[in-house]
Amino acid sequence: MESCSKCGNPKVIIHRKQSGQHLCKECFIENIRKKVLKTIRKENLINKGDKVLVALSGGKDSVTVLDILYDLYKCNIIKLVAVTIDEGIDGYRNDGVEIAKDFASNLKIEHHVVSFKEVYGMSLDEIMKNSKHRGSCTYCGVFRRDIINKMARKVNADKIVTGHNLDDETQAILMNYLEGNIRNLSKIGSKTESKSPMFITKIKPLREIPEKEIGLYAVAKDLNVHFASCPYAEKSFRGEISEIVKGLSKNHPTLMYSTLRGFDKIKTAINNQYKTKYKFERCKICGEPSSNELCRVCTFLDELK
Amino acid sequence: MESCSKCGNPKVIIHRKQSGQHLCKECFIENIRKKVLKTIRKENLINKGDKVLVALSGGKDSVTVLDILYDLYKCNIIKLVAVTIDEGIDGYRNDGVEIAKDFASNLKIEHHVVSFKEVYGMSLDEIMKNSKHRGSCTYCGVFRRDIINKMARKVNADKIVTGHNLDDETQAILMNYLEGNIRNLSKIGSKTESKSPMFITKIKPLREIPEKEIGLYAVAKDLNVHFASCPYAEKSFRGEISEIVKGLSKNHPTLMYSTLRGFDKIKTAINNQYKTKYKFERCKICGEPSSNELCRVCTFLDELK
Repeated sequence: MESCSKCGNPKVIIHRKQSGQHLCKECFIENIRKKVLKTIRKENLINKGDKVLVALSGGKDSVTVLDILYDLYKCNIIKLVAVTIDEGIDGYRNDGVEIAKDFASNLKIEHHVVSFKEVYGMSLDEIMKNSKHRGSCTYCGVFRRDIINKMARKVNADKIVTGHNLDDETQAILMNYLEGNIRNLSKIGSKTESKSPMFITKIKPLREIPEKEIGLYAVAKDLNVHFASCPYAEKSFRGEISEIVKGLSKNHPTLMYSTLRGFDKIKTAINNQYKTKYKFERCKICGEPSSNELCRVCTFLDELK
Repeated sequence: MESCSKCGNPKVIIHRKQSGQHLCKECFIENIRKKVLKTIRKENLINKGDKVLVALSGGKDSVTVLDILYDLYKCNIIKLVAVTIDEGIDGYRNDGVEIAKDFASNLKIEHHVVSFKEVYGMSLDEIMKNSKHRGSCTYCGVFRRDIINKMARKVNADKIVTGHNLDDETQAILMNYLEGNIRNLSKIGSKTESKSPMFITKIKPLREIPEKEIGLYAVAKDLNVHFASCPYAEKSFRGEISEIVKGLSKNHPTLMYSTLRGFDKIKTAINNQYKTKYKFERCKICGEPSSNELCRVCTFLDELK
């Protein structure tokens, strides 16, 4: 058995095939922390004094990113707020919400829980009982992003932090390559800024950390996280791509990294080509910025009436 | 049973899942021919009067592309020459060479057969007996391209035509996406032009036709083609990617097309970013253009000494 490549500790918790590195618990935790901070610095994701809103589901990704950002908060480098969305999924969401509440309260940071029910008048369970529904994930994505963005404006946050990891990013990049969806490709990246000040900038500090390592970080740091998966999770193209990337990564352990690096290299070129002359209109119903007459939220709510 | 979407003939030979189209033999043949000619016109692959050298292995792709280009030859739009490489693979290559010879002689076009043995002093079989070899495909690719390019110069060809199909292109694009190899991506496309006049422009008229349809075209037109696969074919990354693309295409029949279209959209942007300030030097041994002191051919030959 190999010992830790950093400190020699014989009790190793990870062997990274991509680098040959073995790490003990302490060195692994420190390594992940440093990597995330490096992403933040390199990509200029956060400025000193920023008020940062973490979208905290209670899952391993969002708990981990909050755990790491908490260090910056303690050192008075950033201000920290968390928001948890209660989509209203019986037997599933409550656990996540409780975990998020506990975690935020232990850290003594401002925390908001907002439900679909209170904002849109219906829970996801109720939406799914409506015969005109478009599939659970469609609503969940659009409604969650809407609530998080509004909360960010409400608390005057400079940045919204999401827990997207390397697997998520690789899947998104690959899906859009395969679908030839260049416009969507141009929206992927460590930082999503909008021309409209109504949309708060979103950042992804974990985008260079593989999902497996985030799970391991949460275990190593003894973080309480919600590991269940959503009962509405659909068999999707993303699911197929996820399986493929996992399969390929077994024999090609650097594959996700090289896909991300390659994408980041051409991203500027793609962005220049697809420089949007987006002229935001206002949604006729709610007044939020929208490229169509109705924003997606109001379109969906209208359909479900 | 559906009848032909074009002419109503009840004897259908293909159902295209991607378009829902059913085609009879005659309409399918005509459809492929038109698609290839459309690619040639749209991408400006061939000019009137061009002398075109077809790299004719005797396999379905190269036989099909020659069969289609022959129409342009008959109408005096282009001049046509074919070259077949005999790599020297016992029990495999001879069949392909014979098929190529027969086909070219039936069409009454100029045809050259060139062997690794006569050019480099050793067959691929002999190379593979050398303990210092780098794997069969490495030599095969480099040596074949070298011979074909030299033959194109010798016969004063304006273009080299290869039989690369949609599957080949999709695999190459995807491999380089996953490897993050942007420089290689910038070399993929319907037309590969070099800044050095020593490298003749290569074109791929079949790059929008799926492999399966090329096989079907060859059968429908009763073309004699070599269907065996090379005994040296290696378990490769390309093989893995090929399986994945085939698997995904079952449920997503437009996937290869959308990947290609997406790539073609960003290709210009990639090329602008990777505009090579290639300064070709001359290979110290053979004098061919080379970015290193020795060209790849001479490097390999030197190693095998």
